[in-house]
Amino acid sequence: MEISKTTEMLLKAKEEKKLSFAAIGKGIGRSEMFVSALFHGQARATAAEAGKIVARLGLGKNRKEVVAFLVAFPSKGLGPVVPTDPLIYRLYEIMQVYGYPFKAIVHEKFGDGIMSAIDFTMDVEREKDPKGDRIKVTMSGKYLPYKIW
Amino acid sequence: MEISKTTEMLLKAKEEKKLSFAAIGKGIGRSEMFVSALFHGQARATAAEAGKIVARLGLGKNRKEVVAFLVAFPSKGLGPVVPTDPLIYRLYEIMQVYGYPFKAIVHEKFGDGIMSAIDFTMDVEREKDPKGDRIKVTMSGKYLPYKIW
Amino acid sequence: MEISKTTEMLLKAKEEKKLSFAAIGKGIGRSEMFVSALFHGQARATAAEAGKIVARLGLGKNRKEVVAFLVAFPSKGLGPVVPTDPLIYRLYEIMQVYGYPFKAIVHEKFGDGIMSAIDFTMDVEREKDPKGDRIKVTMSGKYLPYKIW
Amino acid sequence: MEISKTTEMLLKAKEEKKLSFAAIGKGIGRSEMFVSALFHGQARATAAEAGKIVARLGLGKNRKEVVAFLVAFPSKGLGPVVPTDPLIYRLYEIMQVYGYPFKAIVHEKFGDGIMSAIDFTMDVEREKDPKGDRIKVTMSGKYLPYKIW
Amino acid sequence: MEISKTTEMLLKAKEEKKLSFAAIGKGIGRSEMFVSALFHGQARATAAEAGKIVARLGLGKNRKEVVAFLVAFPSKGLGPVVPTDPLIYRLYEIMQVYGYPFKAIVHEKFGDGIMSAIDFTMDVEREKDPKGDRIKVTMSGKYLPYKIW
Amino acid sequence: MEISKTTEMLLKAKEEKKLSFAAIGKGIGRSEMFVSALFHGQARATAAEAGKIVARLGLGKNRKEVVAFLVAFPSKGLGPVVPTDPLIYRLYEIMQVYGYPFKAIVHEKFGDGIMSAIDFTMDVEREKDPKGDRIKVTMSGKYLPYKIW
Amino acid sequence: MEISKTTEMLLKAKEEKKLSFAAIGKGIGRSEMFVSALFHGQARATAAEAGKIVARLGLGKNRKEVVAFLVAFPSKGLGPVVPTDPLIYRLYEIMQVYGYPFKAIVHEKFGDGIMSAIDFTMDVEREKDPKGDRIKVTMSGKYLPYKIW
Amino acid sequence: MEISKTTEMLLKAKEEKKLSFAAIGKGIGRSEMFVSALFHGQARATAAEAGKIVARLGLGKNRKEVVAFLVAFPSKGLGPVVPTDPLIYRLYEIMQVYGYPFKAIVHEKFGDGIMSAIDFTMDVEREKDPKGDRIKVTMSGKYLPYKIW
Amino acid sequence: MEISKTTEMLLKAKEEKKLSFAAIGKGIGRSEMFVSALFHGQARATAAEAGKIVARLGLGKNRKEVVAFLVAFPSKGLGPVVPTDPLIYRLYEIMQVYGYPFKAIVHEKFGDGIMSAIDFTMDVEREKDPKGDRIKVTMSGKYLPYKIW
Amino acid sequence: MEISKTTEMLLKAKEEKKLSFAAIGKGIGRSEMFVSALFHGQARATAAEAGKIVARLGLGKNRKEVVAFLVAFPSKGLGPVVPTDPLIYRLYEIMQVYGYPFKAIVHEKFGDGIMSAIDFTMDVEREKDPKGDRIKVTMSGKYLPYKIW
Repeated sequence: MEISKTTEMLLKAKEEKKLSFAAIGKGIGRSEMFVSALFHGQARATAAEAGKIVARLGLGKNRKEVVAFLVAFPSKGLGPVVPTDPLIYRLYEIMQVYGYPFKAIVHEKFGDGIMSAIDFTMDVEREKDPKGDRIKVTMSGKYLPYKIW
Repeated sequence: MEISKTTEMLLKAKEEKKLSFAAIGKGIGRSEMFVSALFHGQARATAAEAGKIVARLGLGKNRKEVVAFLVAFPSKGLGPVVPTDPLIYRLYEIMQVYGYPFKAIVHEKFGDGIMSAIDFTMDVEREKDPKGDRIKVTMSGKYLPYKIW
Repeated sequence: MEISKTTEMLLKAKEEKKLSFAAIGKGIGRSEMFVSALFHGQARATAAEAGKIVARLGLGKNRKEVVAFLVAFPSKGLGPVVPTDPLIYRLYEIMQVYGYPFKAIVHEKFGDGIMSAIDFTMDVEREKDPKGDRIKVTMSGKYLPYKIW
Repeated sequence: MEISKTTEMLLKAKEEKKLSFAAIGKGIGRSEMFVSALFHGQARATAAEAGKIVARLGLGKNRKEVVAFLVAFPSKGLGPVVPTDPLIYRLYEIMQVYGYPFKAIVHEKFGDGIMSAIDFTMDVEREKDPKGDRIKVTMSGKYLPYKIW
Repeated sequence: MEISKTTEMLLKAKEEKKLSFAAIGKGIGRSEMFVSALFHGQARATAAEAGKIVARLGLGKNRKEVVAFLVAFPSKGLGPVVPTDPLIYRLYEIMQVYGYPFKAIVHEKFGDGIMSAIDFTMDVEREKDPKGDRIKVTMSGKYLPYKIW
Repeated sequence: MEISKTTEMLLKAKEEKKLSFAAIGKGIGRSEMFVSALFHGQARATAAEAGKIVARLGLGKNRKEVVAFLVAFPSKGLGPVVPTDPLIYRLYEIMQVYGYPFKAIVHEKFGDGIMSAIDFTMDVEREKDPKGDRIKVTMSGKYLPYKIW
Repeated sequence: MEISKTTEMLLKAKEEKKLSFAAIGKGIGRSEMFVSALFHGQARATAAEAGKIVARLGLGKNRKEVVAFLVAFPSKGLGPVVPTDPLIYRLYEIMQVYGYPFKAIVHEKFGDGIMSAIDFTMDVEREKDPKGDRIKVTMSGKYLPYKIW
Repeated sequence: MEISKTTEMLLKAKEEKKLSFAAIGKGIGRSEMFVSALFHGQARATAAEAGKIVARLGLGKNRKEVVAFLVAFPSKGLGPVVPTDPLIYRLYEIMQVYGYPFKAIVHEKFGDGIMSAIDFTMDVEREKDPKGDRIKVTMSGKYLPYKIW
Repeated sequence: MEISKTTEMLLKAKEEKKLSFAAIGKGIGRSEMFVSALFHGQARATAAEAGKIVARLGLGKNRKEVVAFLVAFPSKGLGPVVPTDPLIYRLYEIMQVYGYPFKAIVHEKFGDGIMSAIDFTMDVEREKDPKGDRIKVTMSGKYLPYKIW
Repeated sequence: MEISKTTEMLLKAKEEKKLSFAAIGKGIGRSEMFVSALFHGQARATAAEAGKIVARLGLGKNRKEVVAFLVAFPSKGLGPVVPTDPLIYRLYEIMQVYGYPFKAIVHEKFGDGIMSAIDFTMDVEREKDPKGDRIKVTMSGKYLPYKIW
């Protein structure tokens, strides 16, 4: 339920190096969202990737701690039950408002199953718009049908 | 916090008429997700649109009730605090796992603001994949910067 | 969050016909747990299967309602946040006590991923034991590795 | 509600020694799950067993602390009310979805009683499968009938 | 989570017949607490016992419903998470205040295990006392040691 | 919500001195449960009693801290809302399952009032049983009738 | 957790008869607060008192139901965990703000014990004040010292 | 949600100086309850009053910290949502049991409004009683009618 | 916690008569917000006002029920603990984000006290703005200083 | 969920410099509420503004930490789910009592949409009043209509 010290160290180093998540991702062949998840302890890197990130961010002094953090099997999920941060809350609100409508469409189009949140990617892009730019989020999760046995 | 009787009636009529959300949407110039939201009392139709839906679904006998439901200003949000339905829960899980990583990317790319969940669209597509088809969800929300005053 | 009327009707008919879940399952080529899930609105039958169940249980008088219930895409999850029924609570307790130990073993043996609860089967058997018979539960869920992107 | 420092020390030593839970378990005649439970403060070792674990993991420097941790009567249960980690959550989901169906089967097969979570074992195996390996969890708990008095 | 209609009917009939739980219990060879648990849907009678209770309470008119209620496998646990009724709350308070002290004594005297709440009896007696009579509650639960495997 | 450092120190000293709660209790004329409650910050000793406990446990080095802890007016109640420790949870379960049945019996036998949890004693004994020893808990609380005014 | 139908009937009859709680209380020798508690199912009347109340309120038509309600052993506690009604919330706020200060004073003046909420009276008076009248609440609860055993 | 270090320091000094809240209150012209609230960070002193309290308690060494604590605008409310301490819980219970009855009386006697918890005093006295002394709590809060606009 | 039937009837009649809250308010000399509060059972009318509203809305057929609803002393507070409706949630979000900043300003400008929510008015206006109209909410609550005693 | 150390440092420096939020705001062209939000980690400054604030408050010694705090993208929302501080609670109460009435008025005047809490300002003024000064809060949020797609 807390941003860890290592997350803060990673974010600060990124800030000081003026690196984007995308730039760091390029160095290890990963998307920006995956890198951001890594930094927040929500995904896992290999030792080689972790080493590259440490090098890129100039965190050699804390190499051991940072690598250990990045290659751990993280205990995922960061927030309180209902998030208070307005940006994160909007994801909660989308689930509250569009959860059932989404369920009805998935069942209509696919059957009795779910969208995986594990075999899953999520990407964020800027959508230019004269009335104000938009945030485009693309999620792609494997359809998993309920097993019949 | 409950699927209303009118929602059930709408879904049943759709079932019996073997209509998809997309087909119903075409009749009123709306997307399938918007129609599903309408059916679940999460969006609002005009009287004209409501009338067309009633006609299409052959719900003339309950016209008054159904139209009233569709043109109301719905009290939104359907589920319990943490959803128990596995399909809807995955949206909650995405918020728990990718909420902070998403926040960090939005701030990096846009600044101090949020993705609107009001000036917002959400679409669901089938992504063909030989390893098993995928569900593609595309969200587009206006970027709203925090006002400085 | 409530046992539905149709569930009660199904269980009562099963009681009166003195049928086991296994016997009903045999009629449609399904396991007893799947049938029990069906009866509790936690799984979905085809129309043909639903029809067979109605016939077997002699519920012809309520055919329409029962079939509709069995072929619906159920909103899953029945109980309160922490179950109060002692039998169900033991599953919660196992999650509380063995959740982290289980997580550590899955990561050791498989990597960063989860056991699917969708591509999943669960079976219950009697284990004869002179010190008192035991309940043997076998779960089998597909290992889903986190997607790297 | 927190992984303790001693747990982290044990897991790190295991990591560095490249030992599996099963290998450590063999040294004291216990299953891998029991060892994982021990490491997470969810089970209790004898002083002799604790000593062997310390030796095996090369934790002599912290012997006193580690032994004290392993022979204590742990206050069990690690997580928040609803777990946010997706792997652990799946156990919660199984309880939500299959709790009542499981209850109905136990009552049908055994009567008014429960599956013990104390006189209980839990094992995890890899199930080879061409469509993707599976995680097989076998639980065995003594059937405890409600006392009639 | 609600006192059921059948419970109210049973309690009212008992009231009108001016029968004590003990008297009803005597008729079926059960303790007063067991009968009270039966009436509140927290325990299960055989069909024969249920029939005797119906007869004793003069509930022949509702025989079918009452018997069905008494022989069901009840979904146990009646109250909200923290009970508001002062009498029931005192049991919660005892758990809050004496829970850990109780745990320490059980571990000291028995080892790593629990007091069963299934192989369990509970009795209530009046303790005469010149300073005001006391309520004596005697609980007896089998000691269940944690299985080592 | 946490076992305090002083509680841990007291329990450790008791462990090392191989003293039972009963033995310590004998030294100050108190029952073992009262001593366990004292150690867990759920009851209060006089300065004289606190001094004797310090002496008995050889905690002279921390006398001031320990005495202050034992003579304080403790803020009682240790756990989370629903306890996760299985042993303590069983007390919660007893409240959930037998709370209403207990209430009905108290009202039948005593009237509109409660069992005090303040003018209250609780004792734990081993009950020898060939089928497995039992834990006998005896509670005695003053009956307090609701005041009529 | 809901104002019952009988409570509403009692309050409506009182409204129509333009009777105050005090006036009704006078008829049975009880205080206005006790009568209000009775009406809200939070206290218990004798059959004789219940009869007088029915007569006074002209509820002869519903005599049986009203008497049964008034002589029952009510399941007490009416509201949600945190009350939303501002008037009732203020009592919650007083508990939040003055709870610990109150505790410290009781311990200073009385010792380790509590103020009974059972052997307890509560009265409400108007306090004339030129700056605006005040509500004076007087509570009197027996001091109950913790039993030492 | 925690008793602060400064509160503990104040209470300890009061203990050692053997001063009552009333005695300290006399020194600054305040009631004992107000002083207890001050000590618990639930009320605010002027700098002059804070200085006198520091002097009286001999806390000159920590003057700066203590004065800062006493003159701050405290963030009020100390406890968890439902208090576990039995003494404080009784205030919660009174709110649960007598909340609605209190509301009905206030509306009858005053109209649509509330008792202020801000323009509010609360006092605690010993009521001598041969059957056991009582705790008398007197609250006086300004009646605030809802504004009509 | 539910929109009552009478609220729905009032809102429907207003809809059909095409009356605004302001227009109805003009008829009884009240603001539109007060009328909306009245309709939602959050404020109280006099009998005369209630009669006028009934007449204006043509609800003579349900006069008795509607008047009773409007002159009752409502149990206030409508929603769940955290509102799911996005419009209402924004008020919750403002409390979460600006609650402490607001507190700091009130203390700086006024001292140790609060803004009354009882002696309180709230008004909603349209603010014309070329970049999109704005909703202007004006709240005015009496400053209540904490009583010093 | 906690006031951070940096917030405390900022507030203390403001206190010692005897500066109002308005005065600090003037130095950077911002309103007092915005400055208070900044201090509480609920808004974000530019590096230039942060530098000016540091200078004004004489926090040069902690410049790096303070600037980092002020220019971060804060994780917003400070409190518990239901605030216990009475001043902040009143905002919660307003949401509970006037949330639905507010919703009805916004829909009547604007349509299906919300008041933004992002493109939003909030100001606090003293309203002189002979019966006691009032706190006037003015909120202005952009009306955001739900997107139709």
